Amino acid sequence: MLTLYHSPNSRSSRIIRLIDELDVWNEIDVQIVGVARNDGSGGRDPKNPHPEGKVPLLVHDGVEIWESNAIILYLTDLFPKAGMGPVVGDPQRGRYLSWLAWYGNVVEPVIAIGVANLSHPVLDVTFRGMPEMIARLSAALESSLFLMGERFTAADLLLVSTFTWSPDAAPDNQAIKEWIARCEARPSAKRMAAFDSNHLEQSNDT
Amino acid sequence: MLTLYHSPNSRSSRIIRLIDELDVWNEIDVQIVGVARNDGSGGRDPKNPHPEGKVPLLVHDGVEIWESNAIILYLTDLFPKAGMGPVVGDPQRGRYLSWLAWYGNVVEPVIAIGVANLSHPVLDVTFRGMPEMIARLSAALESSLFLMGERFTAADLLLVSTFTWSPDAAPDNQAIKEWIARCEARPSAKRMAAFDSNHLEQSNDT
Repeated sequence: MLTLYHSPNSRSSRIIRLIDELDVWNEIDVQIVGVARNDGSGGRDPKNPHPEGKVPLLVHDGVEIWESNAIILYLTDLFPKAGMGPVVGDPQRGRYLSWLAWYGNVVEPVIAIGVANLSHPVLDVTFRGMPEMIARLSAALESSLFLMGERFTAADLLLVSTFTWSPDAAPDNQAIKEWIARCEARPSAKRMAAFDSNHLEQSNDT
Repeated sequence: MLTLYHSPNSRSSRIIRLIDELDVWNEIDVQIVGVARNDGSGGRDPKNPHPEGKVPLLVHDGVEIWESNAIILYLTDLFPKAGMGPVVGDPQRGRYLSWLAWYGNVVEPVIAIGVANLSHPVLDVTFRGMPEMIARLSAALESSLFLMGERFTAADLLLVSTFTWSPDAAPDNQAIKEWIARCEARPSAKRMAAFDSNHLEQSNDT
């Protein structure tokens, strides 16, 4: 049994989009919970078993799986039929793991430190900054339609959320802009938004 | 063909330790390179193909794999015999993926922001802070010897490096202190240090 703890319009919305891309709505029970928001609204929901009250949290047969990139990898391995990520043994597997890890290790800190308008040499050496992040993405997207090649994968789904969540963070770079448009033209983007809009009231009631 | 780009006494030392635990010294060609250090010394090494000059970088048959946690997962999947991490299909797989992701998504930013002595509400909501990080680790270690249970895995190898690299960051918590001692009592800790000490001169020459 698979249960996803989800709060509409949050980091867990990416998992809703992935469920849609994998077409596994019938395999996962989605529980709507409240969550603390950046603007100070919301708060920890006692219905959410995550130790810090965060989302997403996936529970599979009693085992808790946390962190968006770990959950995404777990689900694309569990449901490989949709081809949303290369499986173990595929020559491109390592590149896929690297994009997912890089999102959490570099992109999230760089964006959060930027929003907080902070800077420090240790942060520069550890995470590098926005220019290096943009250079890495644009280099990949100048030679192919998506991060893993000619096919949309969960690496695109995760990475593009950086810019759809904070449109101001989207750089003035042609290859990246066209990639965002390509990713957002997929039906899963609209279905994720519709799902969240339908469940927002339920979340606000918590 | 597998090539690891490594700089002694850096984040890539964890991969050297993993090679030792997996006992695959003959499978991986280790190339020693220089790297920019937090204290301002060192710098980008033209021999290192990593786009930002960072380490570790693993190259497998021409495919670049970057980010320590991605490389660790890739190697424990490629060489499963040593039992350093549950493989796809193991009921504990999701927990393993979560620890590896959590290290990069939460532990590295919390430590770096702490070293830089910065604070901001956005960082607190995004990453939480040191108390939450310590609580998560100690909760896991109060009920078992290692993060995944009774057996040392690559999750321990990665997470314990937080405290062996910056001993000042080690909290005054009995369960965590005993776990650090258990991890560091393994022969791979000494062999990693010996390898780095033997190769330090080569790295300084770059």
